[in-house]
Amino acid sequence: MKDAPRADHMLREIREQPEALQRLLDHEPDRVSALCQAARERDVSLLFLAARGTSDHAAVYAKYLIEIAAGLPVALAAPSVFTLYRARVRLEQALVLGISQSGKAADAIEVLSLAREAGRLTGCITNDRDSPMARTAEHPLYCHAGPEKSLPATKTYTTSLALVCALAACLSARDDLLEDLRRVPELVSAALRLEEQVADRAERYRYMEECAVLARGINQCSALETALKLSETSYLRAQPFSAADFLHGPIAVVEEGYPCFLFAPGGAGFEAMVELADALEKRGAELIVLSDRPELLDRAETPLPMPETPELLSPLVGIVVAQLFAYHLARVKGRDPDRPRGLKKVTHTF
Amino acid sequence: MKDAPRADHMLREIREQPEALQRLLDHEPDRVSALCQAARERDVSLLFLAARGTSDHAAVYAKYLIEIAAGLPVALAAPSVFTLYRARVRLEQALVLGISQSGKAADAIEVLSLAREAGRLTGCITNDRDSPMARTAEHPLYCHAGPEKSLPATKTYTTSLALVCALAACLSARDDLLEDLRRVPELVSAALRLEEQVADRAERYRYMEECAVLARGINQCSALETALKLSETSYLRAQPFSAADFLHGPIAVVEEGYPCFLFAPGGAGFEAMVELADALEKRGAELIVLSDRPELLDRAETPLPMPETPELLSPLVGIVVAQLFAYHLARVKGRDPDRPRGLKKVTHTF
Repeated sequence: MKDAPRADHMLREIREQPEALQRLLDHEPDRVSALCQAARERDVSLLFLAARGTSDHAAVYAKYLIEIAAGLPVALAAPSVFTLYRARVRLEQALVLGISQSGKAADAIEVLSLAREAGRLTGCITNDRDSPMARTAEHPLYCHAGPEKSLPATKTYTTSLALVCALAACLSARDDLLEDLRRVPELVSAALRLEEQVADRAERYRYMEECAVLARGINQCSALETALKLSETSYLRAQPFSAADFLHGPIAVVEEGYPCFLFAPGGAGFEAMVELADALEKRGAELIVLSDRPELLDRAETPLPMPETPELLSPLVGIVVAQLFAYHLARVKGRDPDRPRGLKKVTHTF
Repeated sequence: MKDAPRADHMLREIREQPEALQRLLDHEPDRVSALCQAARERDVSLLFLAARGTSDHAAVYAKYLIEIAAGLPVALAAPSVFTLYRARVRLEQALVLGISQSGKAADAIEVLSLAREAGRLTGCITNDRDSPMARTAEHPLYCHAGPEKSLPATKTYTTSLALVCALAACLSARDDLLEDLRRVPELVSAALRLEEQVADRAERYRYMEECAVLARGINQCSALETALKLSETSYLRAQPFSAADFLHGPIAVVEEGYPCFLFAPGGAGFEAMVELADALEKRGAELIVLSDRPELLDRAETPLPMPETPELLSPLVGIVVAQLFAYHLARVKGRDPDRPRGLKKVTHTF
């Protein structure tokens, strides 16, 4: 294989994730507790999230995890409701939380800004302490990922998920979740040790032009994020689906050899992924399986193993394997993953 | 052009929409008012929606419209939070509303059922009065669409949207919205009169295998629904995007001649669609534009006109033009749009 391109920020940043996650675990617990305490004092009954792009996938993780672990209903803002239609949404009892790696997502900041002016409880998750979003929210939480030079987000994504998880653990007072989260840097290191194995599998997909990316339950965010990484770095048409929705109709596109990427760690969502694999095998699909469960990995044309991880944390660990696959696929395809055509780091939507 | 296939339920059902909408407007106002009154009495502060597939797109319309018009925050349920993870989400102050054309969506029914057992206010939108969902919700609202024989939903979609709009008008006490809704059957009739023009444009896309479907703001539901109709009836890979998200990255897939379907009626979202058209033209994309605004229609390779419609109602009227396009494209491609999706014959070529 030829040498890696000169800059190669993406690969370096993928590898920095254990340290970034550890910094976050060392430095953010007090700020997370303060936000959590404020939410209790105000008797918050709704988490209202404003995000875009990759950060929107962190919001999807928050939707599932915070409802599952803390029982707090979660709504994802449609920013245009505020920016285009100037709606006055009644958020008196809401915690309004912005998520933006750069802290510059204009429409998410507008949602936060309106909420803070109206006296609502506001927080944010961002990697930049000096960003407009960090200044807009009353309770900013920081990713501690360091500068991200590659355009496809990697370490800012996993650290955003870690902050969501820390918040869920605090809101639910579930110490087991916090303990599991503390193990994530080590699990991510274990995932990184699988790089060579992952890289070896990428070559087969040199001429893949499209694929479906499928998951169930808590890993819905992982289907979205994996599809985005593949699209961004290799100009694939990678379309994400919930396994439940896919079986109900879009599976019609699957013919012999059609590549399907199954994001399928063990847990409550696993059985549905096994059923999906059955249906896909009948159609002769090519299965790329990312899992910690041998019984499904063994059925894949391309098994992408991940370290065994508690299900609610699996989006943080599994995605690292998907990032490595996306990176090495981009290299096999001769693309520079650091500078994808058409991609901007900051969403200036308003 | 050859004759239409024998059964052809889809086309007939598309054409039945004005009558179905009129029946709904004649018969449902009292039930909508009763649900609305119950929501006021309980001081509801959250609308929590459970839906799947096409009905999920009606839920996306509800998300935008009810926040914009009534200022009530809206959350879309992730059904697996309840079905797989058995979460106890605190919905004391929520109206839990299921949407299912057939009334048989098991996971949406489960969400409703748990809410009703817990004493929450429940409602549903369904086309089948005798369905499990209609029996589960305290306040069922009916589509009055009559039996839908074609697998791709058409008249049950627009009537679901009409019920959402009636509910929004009632919750917000906005008579102007109700008056606009009363004009929708006539506007849909006007859209149907454009069928020949739409049908004439379909042939060009005989060999189109994929496309992007783009919208902004309130028409996010229309991008999702148009993409689903195209995928279901013609086995296209039609991928829906928010115009805002698309510009930020996925636009990278657009090369010379790449077909982009812009769902772009006039209103607050229009300017963003014009900017998107600028960016797509620079890349040489093929523009299929569905709009009531000549300045954008004139820039399209394929203009699909729709009657001039107030923006908040445009998803009900514009989608009829998209349904006609999907239907005629399926015919041009030699597909039977009524045939059960997912039963496509697989070619076992080696």
